[in-house]
Amino acid sequence: MSAQAISVTRTLPQRYYTDPEVFREEMERFYCQTWICAGRADQIPHPGDYFLREVSGESIIVTRDQSGKIGAFYNVCRHRGTRMCSQPQGSFAGRIQCPYHGWTYGLDGRLIGAPHMEEAGSFCRDEYPLNRVAAGVWDGNIFINLAARPEPLEKQLAELPEKFAAWRMQDLRLHKRLVYDVKANWKLIILNYNECLHCPVLHPTLNRLTNYLGADNETPQPTYVGGAMGFKGDAETMSIDGKRRRDYLPGLNEDERHKVCYYAIYPNFLLSLHPDYMMAHTLWPKAVNHTQVICEWHFHPQQMAKPDFQANDAIDFWDLTNREDWGISELSQLGISSRAYKPGPYSTREQLLHAFDEVVLAREREAKRT
Amino acid sequence: MSAQAISVTRTLPQRYYTDPEVFREEMERFYCQTWICAGRADQIPHPGDYFLREVSGESIIVTRDQSGKIGAFYNVCRHRGTRMCSQPQGSFAGRIQCPYHGWTYGLDGRLIGAPHMEEAGSFCRDEYPLNRVAAGVWDGNIFINLAARPEPLEKQLAELPEKFAAWRMQDLRLHKRLVYDVKANWKLIILNYNECLHCPVLHPTLNRLTNYLGADNETPQPTYVGGAMGFKGDAETMSIDGKRRRDYLPGLNEDERHKVCYYAIYPNFLLSLHPDYMMAHTLWPKAVNHTQVICEWHFHPQQMAKPDFQANDAIDFWDLTNREDWGISELSQLGISSRAYKPGPYSTREQLLHAFDEVVLAREREAKRT
Amino acid sequence: MSAQAISVTRTLPQRYYTDPEVFREEMERFYCQTWICAGRADQIPHPGDYFLREVSGESIIVTRDQSGKIGAFYNVCRHRGTRMCSQPQGSFAGRIQCPYHGWTYGLDGRLIGAPHMEEAGSFCRDEYPLNRVAAGVWDGNIFINLAARPEPLEKQLAELPEKFAAWRMQDLRLHKRLVYDVKANWKLIILNYNECLHCPVLHPTLNRLTNYLGADNETPQPTYVGGAMGFKGDAETMSIDGKRRRDYLPGLNEDERHKVCYYAIYPNFLLSLHPDYMMAHTLWPKAVNHTQVICEWHFHPQQMAKPDFQANDAIDFWDLTNREDWGISELSQLGISSRAYKPGPYSTREQLLHAFDEVVLAREREAKRT
Repeated sequence: MSAQAISVTRTLPQRYYTDPEVFREEMERFYCQTWICAGRADQIPHPGDYFLREVSGESIIVTRDQSGKIGAFYNVCRHRGTRMCSQPQGSFAGRIQCPYHGWTYGLDGRLIGAPHMEEAGSFCRDEYPLNRVAAGVWDGNIFINLAARPEPLEKQLAELPEKFAAWRMQDLRLHKRLVYDVKANWKLIILNYNECLHCPVLHPTLNRLTNYLGADNETPQPTYVGGAMGFKGDAETMSIDGKRRRDYLPGLNEDERHKVCYYAIYPNFLLSLHPDYMMAHTLWPKAVNHTQVICEWHFHPQQMAKPDFQANDAIDFWDLTNREDWGISELSQLGISSRAYKPGPYSTREQLLHAFDEVVLAREREAKRT
Repeated sequence: MSAQAISVTRTLPQRYYTDPEVFREEMERFYCQTWICAGRADQIPHPGDYFLREVSGESIIVTRDQSGKIGAFYNVCRHRGTRMCSQPQGSFAGRIQCPYHGWTYGLDGRLIGAPHMEEAGSFCRDEYPLNRVAAGVWDGNIFINLAARPEPLEKQLAELPEKFAAWRMQDLRLHKRLVYDVKANWKLIILNYNECLHCPVLHPTLNRLTNYLGADNETPQPTYVGGAMGFKGDAETMSIDGKRRRDYLPGLNEDERHKVCYYAIYPNFLLSLHPDYMMAHTLWPKAVNHTQVICEWHFHPQQMAKPDFQANDAIDFWDLTNREDWGISELSQLGISSRAYKPGPYSTREQLLHAFDEVVLAREREAKRT
Repeated sequence: MSAQAISVTRTLPQRYYTDPEVFREEMERFYCQTWICAGRADQIPHPGDYFLREVSGESIIVTRDQSGKIGAFYNVCRHRGTRMCSQPQGSFAGRIQCPYHGWTYGLDGRLIGAPHMEEAGSFCRDEYPLNRVAAGVWDGNIFINLAARPEPLEKQLAELPEKFAAWRMQDLRLHKRLVYDVKANWKLIILNYNECLHCPVLHPTLNRLTNYLGADNETPQPTYVGGAMGFKGDAETMSIDGKRRRDYLPGLNEDERHKVCYYAIYPNFLLSLHPDYMMAHTLWPKAVNHTQVICEWHFHPQQMAKPDFQANDAIDFWDLTNREDWGISELSQLGISSRAYKPGPYSTREQLLHAFDEVVLAREREAKRT
């Protein structure tokens, strides 16, 4: 063990989990100024298909234009500020129309109709396009960025596209989505995801399938953290009984077939790549002590097409584990809110957590400087 | 088109619709320092009859005294501050008694009983009347004013009593009341009421009865704004099918029989005078983004006495239209709350809205000066 | 009547009942820096038995250790701050274990297990005991004190242990608990408890049993206030019909058998000692205008063991009276929140209330000085 591992590191002070002002700043820093995962390209296969996402109180329309390109816009009419679109997902008939006075926009955001506005002499349509939000796609995963001048998505993703190319995520298709309301700060959910030291106590079912001390963690990166874990005994994937009921994903080599890669891609994407499926959590913070979590299971379409395709073994397993994790995250939130809470000591098994805390602090310092 | 119409005016900045502090100030300025419509005199026909209204968090008792005069009081006992009256309407048996220690007040507010207080030598009943709120009546409509030194009701109403005398509002009687909870700022409801540019898109049923470009608007006044609209085709009133199922109100001339007068009387009274009935909305703001709206339909008692009296054609029509308006007002509230919202351009069809915005700004300037 | 009684005293200004900041300060001053009644020793008869109490947002574990001593701890793990215990009451199996990573504490709070922490070289278990809260017992009633250096419980109780020794409270056992949510400031509940001037108007049932002018009040003390009341006619206890269906408590003399002692022991304990039972209210403030009240009825075990033991006559009577009191306290809260509220005059029958107000003000002055 290195000298570095021996020095005791500690959890963050209370305010990072309870202060609404710190939350507001973190929303700005992490959710409005960096790329966040918004969903999957296969949710909107055709031009005009769309879904809504709520980020830091903002309703964002994610849609595909006539050229097939995915774009995103604030859900706000330029006339009198009306939220135009209320259904969480659907399909626009070639244009986006405000239900109040009928201002109409192309799928590319240009204003193409504004009844009676020409009567006001100086009005010029070109000045009133929808407010655009940056959008990009990595291997089927859509990212958006609310910053005025976002840094390139590629920079934030760094080595990830290369590292996970073999899983061919863009070929996979959504089979199941569960949405959870968790009364905990968004960072507590990331901390919980980043260690398995709690597995023997909290997750007896999971603990039968994997060795909680056996994580092969990558050196923490500025924009993500993660590692791989193998299986115990004859388990072949994470499922209720460890049995694998689907073929291996087609691009995987022998090594990749015998592990799960768990990566927390800051700030909102928890990517869990299994030998035979992909699970993706996205986090949607609502308040300093409240986070909505969307959990999706994606499978290979060749497997999904089989008459005997099964997925409940994987879904039920993780739904159980998710609920255990959300429950303990909520207890963390409650305890950390106490006046008795003081930063506590991390063990050497919680080094990824300290790495994330350091990122949180570094971003804060950076923000205070500018 | 005049040069004035050509200059583009814009909606108000976000804070007027989202900032709790601006809301607090506007409540003081508009709802506590000016006359607001509280209800109808025929709700409390006999001495001791009363109803409660909640204005800016204050519970106000509106009642009729032994002489038949309508008065208003804060619903607060002078002993230990108890809210005395909980039922939203009813009848006092000649006096108002606090349910805690039995302090008793006349219908004129004088303290007439205070058990055991005489034992405290210096106690004098005359010093503890109920706190009075100014009250007045215009043509059957009760107004109250929480200001310490209210300006005369007549000044605020200006030309209105003369203008609408023919409708003889005091002769009409309540037939139906609907109460709506609208998640929108009170001013958005007034803005929505003041234009029909949205009618073709939002109100297909209404749009069959009236020409949305045909409003005959009066020059905006400092305390109200409004105008008249005629009917399309053979429609004779605003009802589900445009048919009129009641006699014309008795005092109307030929011109008045063929139009509806829509007046927003600041800050809380939307008066819609039809050829055969009167609809009245009163607004009761609860929070910067939440307004309770009471909508009432009043008819002539001679019509109401007829065995075949019908009113559902009018009620259902406006209930539908109301719900469309509240829905879009809520979407306005949501969109204006976005960081992407910027004041947008008014068309020439939205001049009454700009006039109201100017009143809002003028009152704010006035308040800052004093 | 003395000259002092003739001078008019008044209720406290509005802010003491409506200002969240005053509430926060009072929670600190009264609920975190003095002894509060947490429950009864017979709730946790065996080592490891525990119950939780929420004080000023803090979850406190009250438990009995192996030696039989009652202690209290913050419900917060020293590792990552998790709230360990969620069930409101139960029994620990000899130790308190955090459900997250398995940190384990003795019933005396010492850390006795911390998996994998030894791998971090400098870790020392002795540095991470549970955070202890002071605890003490008076005649079966458990008190806790969150202060870092609490004054002795005996000092706060002053003459009370001697005064009420005859009731032998520690021998009594819980028969019934009711929990009420009251939308009123905690002090209004104490004020309501401290006078019977309201009894003829508010409590017709109670008023048949006791003379509302007949209280024999003790000189108010800095930490409590109270007095005794006798019975009307042939009533023998406070019950639906005034009949007494249980033997007198064994230690009472003739005088004590014919009165009820009503004591408000600041800040949260309302002790009502009857000839044949004990009723105890504890107050648990949740917000400036919201208090949870736990009401318990305790009887002598010899009576409870009888086959024909009855208690509903006492429980139903006080449940009715409680509800009347909570209702009027909520109306007080609403009225005092009005801008029309001004401090009102106390009668000579409300002197205990003024004494409590003086304690509230004195503690505030004291806090401002330090």
